[in-house]
Amino acid sequence: MNTSTSPITGCKFNIPSDLNDKEKLNTFVEKNRTEGRKIVAVQGLGFVGSVMSLVVANSPKDKFAVIGVDLPSQGSYWKIASINDGEIPVQSSDNKVHDFFEKTKQRNNFYATYDSYAYQLSDIIIVDINLDVEKKHDQRNVLQSYDLSLANFKNGIESIAENCKEDALIVIETTVPPGTCEKVVKPILDNNFEERGILKKYKLAHSYERVMPGPDYIDSIINFYRVYSGIDNKSAKAAEDFLRSIIKTDEYPLTRLQSTNATEMAKVLENSYRAMNIAFIQEWTEFAESAGVNLFEVTDAIGMRPTHSNIMRPGVGVGGYCLTKDPLLASWARKKIFDGENLPQSETAVQINDQMPLHTAKLISNFANKNSELKNILILGVSYRSEVGDTRYTPVELLCKELENRNFSVSLHDPFINYWEEMERAVSSNLEEVIDIKYDAVILATSHSEYQDNEKLNNWITENPDMIIVDANKVLTDKQVKKIRVFNKLKIVGRGDL
Amino acid sequence: MNTSTSPITGCKFNIPSDLNDKEKLNTFVEKNRTEGRKIVAVQGLGFVGSVMSLVVANSPKDKFAVIGVDLPSQGSYWKIASINDGEIPVQSSDNKVHDFFEKTKQRNNFYATYDSYAYQLSDIIIVDINLDVEKKHDQRNVLQSYDLSLANFKNGIESIAENCKEDALIVIETTVPPGTCEKVVKPILDNNFEERGILKKYKLAHSYERVMPGPDYIDSIINFYRVYSGIDNKSAKAAEDFLRSIIKTDEYPLTRLQSTNATEMAKVLENSYRAMNIAFIQEWTEFAESAGVNLFEVTDAIGMRPTHSNIMRPGVGVGGYCLTKDPLLASWARKKIFDGENLPQSETAVQINDQMPLHTAKLISNFANKNSELKNILILGVSYRSEVGDTRYTPVELLCKELENRNFSVSLHDPFINYWEEMERAVSSNLEEVIDIKYDAVILATSHSEYQDNEKLNNWITENPDMIIVDANKVLTDKQVKKIRVFNKLKIVGRGDL
Repeated sequence: MNTSTSPITGCKFNIPSDLNDKEKLNTFVEKNRTEGRKIVAVQGLGFVGSVMSLVVANSPKDKFAVIGVDLPSQGSYWKIASINDGEIPVQSSDNKVHDFFEKTKQRNNFYATYDSYAYQLSDIIIVDINLDVEKKHDQRNVLQSYDLSLANFKNGIESIAENCKEDALIVIETTVPPGTCEKVVKPILDNNFEERGILKKYKLAHSYERVMPGPDYIDSIINFYRVYSGIDNKSAKAAEDFLRSIIKTDEYPLTRLQSTNATEMAKVLENSYRAMNIAFIQEWTEFAESAGVNLFEVTDAIGMRPTHSNIMRPGVGVGGYCLTKDPLLASWARKKIFDGENLPQSETAVQINDQMPLHTAKLISNFANKNSELKNILILGVSYRSEVGDTRYTPVELLCKELENRNFSVSLHDPFINYWEEMERAVSSNLEEVIDIKYDAVILATSHSEYQDNEKLNNWITENPDMIIVDANKVLTDKQVKKIRVFNKLKIVGRGDL
Repeated sequence: MNTSTSPITGCKFNIPSDLNDKEKLNTFVEKNRTEGRKIVAVQGLGFVGSVMSLVVANSPKDKFAVIGVDLPSQGSYWKIASINDGEIPVQSSDNKVHDFFEKTKQRNNFYATYDSYAYQLSDIIIVDINLDVEKKHDQRNVLQSYDLSLANFKNGIESIAENCKEDALIVIETTVPPGTCEKVVKPILDNNFEERGILKKYKLAHSYERVMPGPDYIDSIINFYRVYSGIDNKSAKAAEDFLRSIIKTDEYPLTRLQSTNATEMAKVLENSYRAMNIAFIQEWTEFAESAGVNLFEVTDAIGMRPTHSNIMRPGVGVGGYCLTKDPLLASWARKKIFDGENLPQSETAVQINDQMPLHTAKLISNFANKNSELKNILILGVSYRSEVGDTRYTPVELLCKELENRNFSVSLHDPFINYWEEMERAVSSNLEEVIDIKYDAVILATSHSEYQDNEKLNNWITENPDMIIVDANKVLTDKQVKKIRVFNKLKIVGRGDL
């Protein structure tokens, strides 16, 4: 029998062989309709879809019941089973996530399924499935090529188009190549509606999310600016009504753009903007090091100008699901959907960022060349973001691999991670235990607050004055650096004292 | 006899053959010392030095008298003569410039000279001379190579080093390649002091300006953040004292960096940051046009996020003295002073920006291909910045040349310019006169307020519905665009309706 394992709890779930869930769905919908709720299907129960489901099921006026839909596959079924078993399938330091989930249990207005019959019952369908870019790197992690397949995404839309109501509102939240709603989603809907012989009364809108896993997970949906568009005026209006009912639009006004091309482009442009600004600073990090300049200090000084406040700081690398692929997704769209050139600067940004973690590894190697005793390295922080245990495309992966390729012994700590799925490897989450041991070098890789102005960590560092400290991500506070610098060979990426 | 002509007034001044100005300098200094003022020499009376002189001579506690020093050359002598004749050698819409200059006349605490004897008399010397990058382009304005000569800059420093007091404070404000204070200025001072047999008690500091010609010319010095550093602690402290006496540091706190390398790098990094972000958006402008997306609308929506507020808008090109060269200056320094690589992204930014005006010319050509009647073009705005008549490296120059190469007839208007020096060409500053004539196309190139929500301009546009309007720089307001769009074939760069 096929099973699907939760990477959070380790629980195994048996994937049912009978994929008919009509009875339970009918009961759920009937109950919620009776209580006056509209039915919203959320397709895809990942980092976005699962929390978006919670937000919709907790709309201020209790207007909606949510059916979460995902695939009965090894990789995804556990999310469905977890939700129906009373466990939300994301790790989060945001208490609101747990509060919101509890409330859906009390109201019984959140149910998960694999049965696309769900779309037949829904008034609104939100698409939150992944659309991945496949990147190929050489051994030095140099990006060689990339490609994108719309096949899974199209399958997802197809299953909606075959089932949805004539007048359903379909909101695409997935980050898609610009042009997708008009040139991919709409034709699929139109074809299916023609085959089904029903009127094309559907409404199709695009409104991208800006979800940030972490302590403000829920607020990154409810208390944040939203951009939206529709393939026609009625679609845009329907999307606006829906968004108004879940987002605090009085404080965070909505912005309507003229076309789905525009909102699709906005999403990939805003992420490319960040990716490119990170890559740009990497070039200056290396310059600053050769000139003995503390670039953290420089970028702080520049950032005081309101016109320059978004300047990035030097760092260990770029991680997460979006910044590592969205510039490529945009470039792909320009070539394949609009028959244009590629986006050279945006592609270069990803290339540079993919290489970035090697820089910190090179620093450590340079120290080791001068001191052959340097063997044991502790990396503090595995997650790609602070205050969250998110290892998706974390730059620490390449840093760790590269150090081990260079024959260093690497230990790992992260307060939010016990098991690193992608690396199939244990991580210590107990800092006191970790710093009971002596290391030759410590790399601070993630700005978790546990590392900042931590008396015990400071003492341990100053008691080991020969230990090299590489602050690769401006993790340590200025106050802490001052203290440590007196006792220790503190070497900080971008701080120019290398 | 050699003469030097003011490009502002057209006045010709005879360059004196006797370059001894000791008598007048002694009298000026004696008078001001008696009145309790310290003597500050400002080397270089260009866009920065002349206004910096005014700021220093108008310090809140009336602490300083200023000697402006420049060269007795055809290109520069007119600035010296103008100041002593009672005309400030910059054009400005900032009334404070004129008020400040009047006050120096009343107090008689601002004098200009070509005699480096001035440095013998000065307590503080501020270096505001140019340091240019020589760029070579091919016929398509593609940047082929660039170089930088420190010769003039070194001569300037030499003339200070040969004359200055033993304990003078020397503040470099010129944008220099990182490493210059330590590796160029300091050795020149040290050598000369050794030759002169005097103690090296000089103080050497670097504090770059962020001067913006325009309506806030004076305030861009007095009411703005400043970064500074010294080659040693005593130099940094002396610079700080001086800056505190001219800048409103209670509202705009000073930032001290650890080395002159750091402040030198900060200046070129902050300008490279902007240049690179402009180049980045150019890539997306072309993408947006092919996707029919209004990129102005998209960047406005993205800019609502505080982390994305610095995102640039599409435009006609990049002009002015700084953004067009500083990324190259930085790259040069990394190669030549620190034996490193170049800065590829920063160089690419300049390359792209140098080409940018061709894009607007190409748009006009595309229209002309469809309509061979399109011949006469009016460009509104010649200056590279709004609300100021500054044509230094304005992108309108390449736009204008390219259009004329393509055999269009080009007329020019700018409310702040009567004569375009670099192009040796008259410009109309009277909008009503200009719009009395019919054109086939109008390009809005500079965001002067005169063009915005201007009833007469709007009427003229709507009365000529066949005229093509290219808003290449988001000059028109959204309200204005709405009005015009009803009547006219409005085509706007980055607005996606091309």
